[in-house]
Amino acid sequence: MAGFTHLFIPGPTNIPEQVRQAMNLPMEDMRASTFPELTLGLFAGLKRVFKNESGRVFIYPSSGTGAWESAMTNTLSPGDRVLMSRFGQFSHLWVDMAERLGLEVDVIDTEWGTGVPVEIYAERLAADKEHRIKAVFCTHNETATGVTSDVAGVRKGLDAANHPALLFVDGVSSIGSIDFRQDEWGVDCAVSGSQKGFMLPAGLGFLSVSQKALEAAKTAKGRRCYFSFDDMIRNNDNGFFPYTPATQLLRGLRVSLDLIEAEGLEAIFARHHHLAEGVRKAVDAWGLKLCAKERKWHSDTVSAIHVPEGIDSAEVVKRAYHKYQTSLGVGLNKVAGKVFRIGHLGWLNEVMVCGALSAAEMALRDCGVKLAPGSGVGAALEHFRLAGPVAVAKAA
Amino acid sequence: MAGFTHLFIPGPTNIPEQVRQAMNLPMEDMRASTFPELTLGLFAGLKRVFKNESGRVFIYPSSGTGAWESAMTNTLSPGDRVLMSRFGQFSHLWVDMAERLGLEVDVIDTEWGTGVPVEIYAERLAADKEHRIKAVFCTHNETATGVTSDVAGVRKGLDAANHPALLFVDGVSSIGSIDFRQDEWGVDCAVSGSQKGFMLPAGLGFLSVSQKALEAAKTAKGRRCYFSFDDMIRNNDNGFFPYTPATQLLRGLRVSLDLIEAEGLEAIFARHHHLAEGVRKAVDAWGLKLCAKERKWHSDTVSAIHVPEGIDSAEVVKRAYHKYQTSLGVGLNKVAGKVFRIGHLGWLNEVMVCGALSAAEMALRDCGVKLAPGSGVGAALEHFRLAGPVAVAKAA
Amino acid sequence: MAGFTHLFIPGPTNIPEQVRQAMNLPMEDMRASTFPELTLGLFAGLKRVFKNESGRVFIYPSSGTGAWESAMTNTLSPGDRVLMSRFGQFSHLWVDMAERLGLEVDVIDTEWGTGVPVEIYAERLAADKEHRIKAVFCTHNETATGVTSDVAGVRKGLDAANHPALLFVDGVSSIGSIDFRQDEWGVDCAVSGSQKGFMLPAGLGFLSVSQKALEAAKTAKGRRCYFSFDDMIRNNDNGFFPYTPATQLLRGLRVSLDLIEAEGLEAIFARHHHLAEGVRKAVDAWGLKLCAKERKWHSDTVSAIHVPEGIDSAEVVKRAYHKYQTSLGVGLNKVAGKVFRIGHLGWLNEVMVCGALSAAEMALRDCGVKLAPGSGVGAALEHFRLAGPVAVAKAA
Amino acid sequence: MAGFTHLFIPGPTNIPEQVRQAMNLPMEDMRASTFPELTLGLFAGLKRVFKNESGRVFIYPSSGTGAWESAMTNTLSPGDRVLMSRFGQFSHLWVDMAERLGLEVDVIDTEWGTGVPVEIYAERLAADKEHRIKAVFCTHNETATGVTSDVAGVRKGLDAANHPALLFVDGVSSIGSIDFRQDEWGVDCAVSGSQKGFMLPAGLGFLSVSQKALEAAKTAKGRRCYFSFDDMIRNNDNGFFPYTPATQLLRGLRVSLDLIEAEGLEAIFARHHHLAEGVRKAVDAWGLKLCAKERKWHSDTVSAIHVPEGIDSAEVVKRAYHKYQTSLGVGLNKVAGKVFRIGHLGWLNEVMVCGALSAAEMALRDCGVKLAPGSGVGAALEHFRLAGPVAVAKAA
Repeated sequence: MAGFTHLFIPGPTNIPEQVRQAMNLPMEDMRASTFPELTLGLFAGLKRVFKNESGRVFIYPSSGTGAWESAMTNTLSPGDRVLMSRFGQFSHLWVDMAERLGLEVDVIDTEWGTGVPVEIYAERLAADKEHRIKAVFCTHNETATGVTSDVAGVRKGLDAANHPALLFVDGVSSIGSIDFRQDEWGVDCAVSGSQKGFMLPAGLGFLSVSQKALEAAKTAKGRRCYFSFDDMIRNNDNGFFPYTPATQLLRGLRVSLDLIEAEGLEAIFARHHHLAEGVRKAVDAWGLKLCAKERKWHSDTVSAIHVPEGIDSAEVVKRAYHKYQTSLGVGLNKVAGKVFRIGHLGWLNEVMVCGALSAAEMALRDCGVKLAPGSGVGAALEHFRLAGPVAVAKAA
Repeated sequence: MAGFTHLFIPGPTNIPEQVRQAMNLPMEDMRASTFPELTLGLFAGLKRVFKNESGRVFIYPSSGTGAWESAMTNTLSPGDRVLMSRFGQFSHLWVDMAERLGLEVDVIDTEWGTGVPVEIYAERLAADKEHRIKAVFCTHNETATGVTSDVAGVRKGLDAANHPALLFVDGVSSIGSIDFRQDEWGVDCAVSGSQKGFMLPAGLGFLSVSQKALEAAKTAKGRRCYFSFDDMIRNNDNGFFPYTPATQLLRGLRVSLDLIEAEGLEAIFARHHHLAEGVRKAVDAWGLKLCAKERKWHSDTVSAIHVPEGIDSAEVVKRAYHKYQTSLGVGLNKVAGKVFRIGHLGWLNEVMVCGALSAAEMALRDCGVKLAPGSGVGAALEHFRLAGPVAVAKAA
Repeated sequence: MAGFTHLFIPGPTNIPEQVRQAMNLPMEDMRASTFPELTLGLFAGLKRVFKNESGRVFIYPSSGTGAWESAMTNTLSPGDRVLMSRFGQFSHLWVDMAERLGLEVDVIDTEWGTGVPVEIYAERLAADKEHRIKAVFCTHNETATGVTSDVAGVRKGLDAANHPALLFVDGVSSIGSIDFRQDEWGVDCAVSGSQKGFMLPAGLGFLSVSQKALEAAKTAKGRRCYFSFDDMIRNNDNGFFPYTPATQLLRGLRVSLDLIEAEGLEAIFARHHHLAEGVRKAVDAWGLKLCAKERKWHSDTVSAIHVPEGIDSAEVVKRAYHKYQTSLGVGLNKVAGKVFRIGHLGWLNEVMVCGALSAAEMALRDCGVKLAPGSGVGAALEHFRLAGPVAVAKAA
Repeated sequence: MAGFTHLFIPGPTNIPEQVRQAMNLPMEDMRASTFPELTLGLFAGLKRVFKNESGRVFIYPSSGTGAWESAMTNTLSPGDRVLMSRFGQFSHLWVDMAERLGLEVDVIDTEWGTGVPVEIYAERLAADKEHRIKAVFCTHNETATGVTSDVAGVRKGLDAANHPALLFVDGVSSIGSIDFRQDEWGVDCAVSGSQKGFMLPAGLGFLSVSQKALEAAKTAKGRRCYFSFDDMIRNNDNGFFPYTPATQLLRGLRVSLDLIEAEGLEAIFARHHHLAEGVRKAVDAWGLKLCAKERKWHSDTVSAIHVPEGIDSAEVVKRAYHKYQTSLGVGLNKVAGKVFRIGHLGWLNEVMVCGALSAAEMALRDCGVKLAPGSGVGAALEHFRLAGPVAVAKAA
């Protein structure tokens, strides 16, 4: 088929040309004496994105899932009790991993379309006088439902209870796109991956840890080797890695960090909000509903959109892909067939979003959804036009 | 600014990923014994695109303008009388070149928004009993106004008058995108360039010639050296070039010809018509007018769109570029400030066009044009949806 | 510094242009219905390279080290007794991992410069009447010392003892470059990575397993989640992955497998032997010794070369890198300062090897090693010339 | 065939990775208001490389041959008398072009292997009291024979005779690699191309002109249009071009100019001399002779090497290409079959040159040339080692 394929899944995201150029390179010697010039700067740059001044960041050749495993196996021991909540496919998988790695998981299931139940967490923590809970988990952005949770709220609960549990955050689809403050919010293990806000291909898992997490790692008995902090720390301190790193992605990461610094994190968050608002205006204009139940849960990186009764959302996604060369996200697990998703994170601007909405609108109408042609795109572009592109606003 | 820059000028056009990959390569020896394996296939493939079985094709390291010069200097002599028409910036420049190269130009000026005056040509040719007119020029697609002319009609006039003049066609923005038939229409010199329907960067000028043109070159006294047929023929016959060819572009051309053959010329023409119709539906929905006066002049590769009185089209283009990262074409010469252009040729699909229309719509409203938000995009996407993507229709 | 940097470490290796082109691409949807068209072919192609018809191959977003961990945690349980040998940095690290993952390791230390002690293995296995040994480990090619071991010999020992232990092979720096036959040799877990014979950037770990290994995984109690066979099998069977795969590398892998199939595995092995022989001729001509003690241990993918007493091999590597833009491998662990290494595997030909030898020769002389200028390169190029390039011999 | 193809022709030359990255990009709008930010800097940067402060530089989408034509047609008129000399294939072609463009050429043929006969030029100019000679031509570096001529000497002859003729220099294979000083030497038209010292693909012709040449253009009657100064000047002054420029190459040029500025012209000249000396040491060690008759003619960018009687140099080149994947230059015209050439210009370092010499040595011996294996490479690498890499010397 002619023309570009359009990518609007919530990761992998679109790669900036500059990053793509930087990854078009011959292989290099990861033991060269000049290699640390690259890597030490990456650690520093990543820490700025995580807003983690006091701790350190690990870069694994893995997916974000690998960084999840690293967090758990390095700082916890089999049998440790942890507090988790489940309200979408990715929080579900995280619980599943915790159980398989031998943790004693206290799971709170809440409705899909809501997020971390901050109040319940607070109660549980307050009730846990013996501090049997070793860690509290928070899926910052549930990619399956387009729900953003209140990490600062979870921290408040911990503080109110004066509870020493570690705070784990899954920021795979939020960090670098949505406001996140590791130090300020007292996050001990923050997980992300290369293929979302970092605008790189999949292949790197990031784990940003606090001093407290590093301390916990000294006694934690989780079995780990590939993901071991120790090996990494020993080598990273000199700018090297315990095994062959994915140098091509590291070169790309250098450029994506440069782009992030040039645009500025706050401007990036504002841009994501601006673009997400355009999508939400379109959803309203179509007369459809988001999976996210309330405004406070609205994600600025992905929107999961309910299709009307009787329509199969998987069919909408299939049409968009096969007829309009546009990748949208399917509904997963409990919301399979019921929602489709538009990823709106990373290297993105207004006109790209209009393309996504155009494809979605055509596919929806093809599948029998009644909506006025151009209604969604029209609402979005009027929003974009009036709210002004953030970049321009900033430049002016 | 974040996200991709959107390119909707009528050339250079968007490059397919496959072509871009093929041009990402080290340099090579253009005198290697294996080099003709590449080049002989390119000549053959280009001839199929021009539908020129009997003649030959020249590939110059130049722009299309260079191929214009090659056509004139190789087949005509200073002082030769030629029949031309002028109705846009590019037909204007062609006349200018002819004059500067010493030809005696008989120019017919027609209104911008119309094309080659086939009837007047026929009259002039019929009247030219002494065959003083040595060549007749036809701008197949006037890129400045979005007007496609009737090459077959010009041939009819020549045949009716039994006139031996050469027929020159400027197909820079048509060949490979709009129906063109060199042999059938008896075209002697057909000019194109790499950066339009051939979906490559600028840098190659193509000149496809008939046996009659090759014959004329034997006696023509136009001064030429860089663009000389002789040097090219002597070297091309063995697969080589008289001076260093742009090997990187030639490698890209191999892939673009493969893509053209895979999609099929007729399917490509249908796709361009389908996409152009979507743009025209949008223009209608906006309540605006094309520069092309009548349906028969409508170009399937570029639309020049009149803005309402009191609006500066240059401002629309500027907004689209600076605020929405989208390149549209400005109005040139007589229509400067009055029209803006959307290029819709090359490696393009429906969702890309929706992006162009979205940017245009936002920029138009920003500049004060009254139109209902989403009206143009909505009209286009309903057309795209119902007329079905050509590629799918074909595949089914 | 001007000119290309020359890479002759034993991995990452040089990337073919075709692979590099294929990895220059936008991101794609790893849940698209067309994605399995890519992935199912990769599994099939990898199995051909491993010569594993009956089992299956796993592709992890990880380094080869990750595939090591996958092999151990999926098929063994903590406390299981395993038989290993140690004679270089990589066999050392493998032992270390086994111990950290809780295995009961029976280590046989042999001199660095020798390989797996096949006879001792055979004795131990014969003596293990109760089959307490659950797995036998064989480092096929010890990258630190340039020693290739006899996998078939290890299998013979198992068969002679009629011993049911699993056979693990580390083929990171051998598979795809040196003869390896999983089915024929009865290898249960064969580990490799993308950045050596597969001619890709680092970032993929390959684990090729037998049915027996898959069977063992059903009861093995090693803790695993990221590297779990189960999740992979469930998803891979349909062409998908349990978490985001490194699609860019998978696209590269498609092309590298195509290149491997086009050249042919036997031709590739012959080429590696041909090039390695050239390096060994040079070492002889220099009057230096390989770390590999005997001809039977000579590796066709990497040569570790002893520098004379009083010379620091690290200084040789440093000179080569800083003065001649050439990456050679340093000596690791016990042979640090004593050997330097030339990697000669992957996408390589005679003239590239001559470059490596030239750089090594200059650096050696700079460091005070007495050798006749041009002696090593001269010996190599005379070998290359007379032994004929394999590719040409084959084509003729 | 496996491994990289090695390119040692005297152009196109090897492309730096940075340049290759920069050319891996989507197309762009060459009429965008931001485009001059790129182009104005290119004009300025090129002027620094030509050491032309007072005049201006033209960038044509063409080969260097096109820039030759531009120089002649813009500043001279048919019938003008010019003084040229011929001593190789490229000076031969230049004379041929001058004749075909209608100039009255006074040709001095000197032996191939010598260069511009500065004394004869001086005599002719002194004798030309009526100033009938309008231009004097000097091939700075004859690529076919590896001969560098004395441009400053030609200028002296002009000055001594107080002669107003224009001075034309063909610097296609010298500028950016060998000392060249347009202003100081009073050069009026200096021609170069992208694919040599500028380390880019072929496709751009550069013409750097003095104010005197610009003045001459006002009255010169050479027929030109594509190559016309006027159109270029009018557009270039604002950062634009009269027809679509090769934007991809312009983006590459930005990076190659940056690399040139970073290394420094004098350091680049020194590096070329250093590498060329290595080649010459090898030729000596082989017992062969350069085509260049005397040391003063030795070119630092290309060496043409005589093969012994009875050997066909074309066969040497063929072997190198087919058996060793290495492109060397053939002998052209009068020296066909007698010499082969090693291009040693552009993005090049010592180890690359050793590769070229290795391939040449193997091919020479394959063809029956008696020389001691490793003799040439050995001589070169000892030179490289002792003379120190220029870059390092400079850095220290």
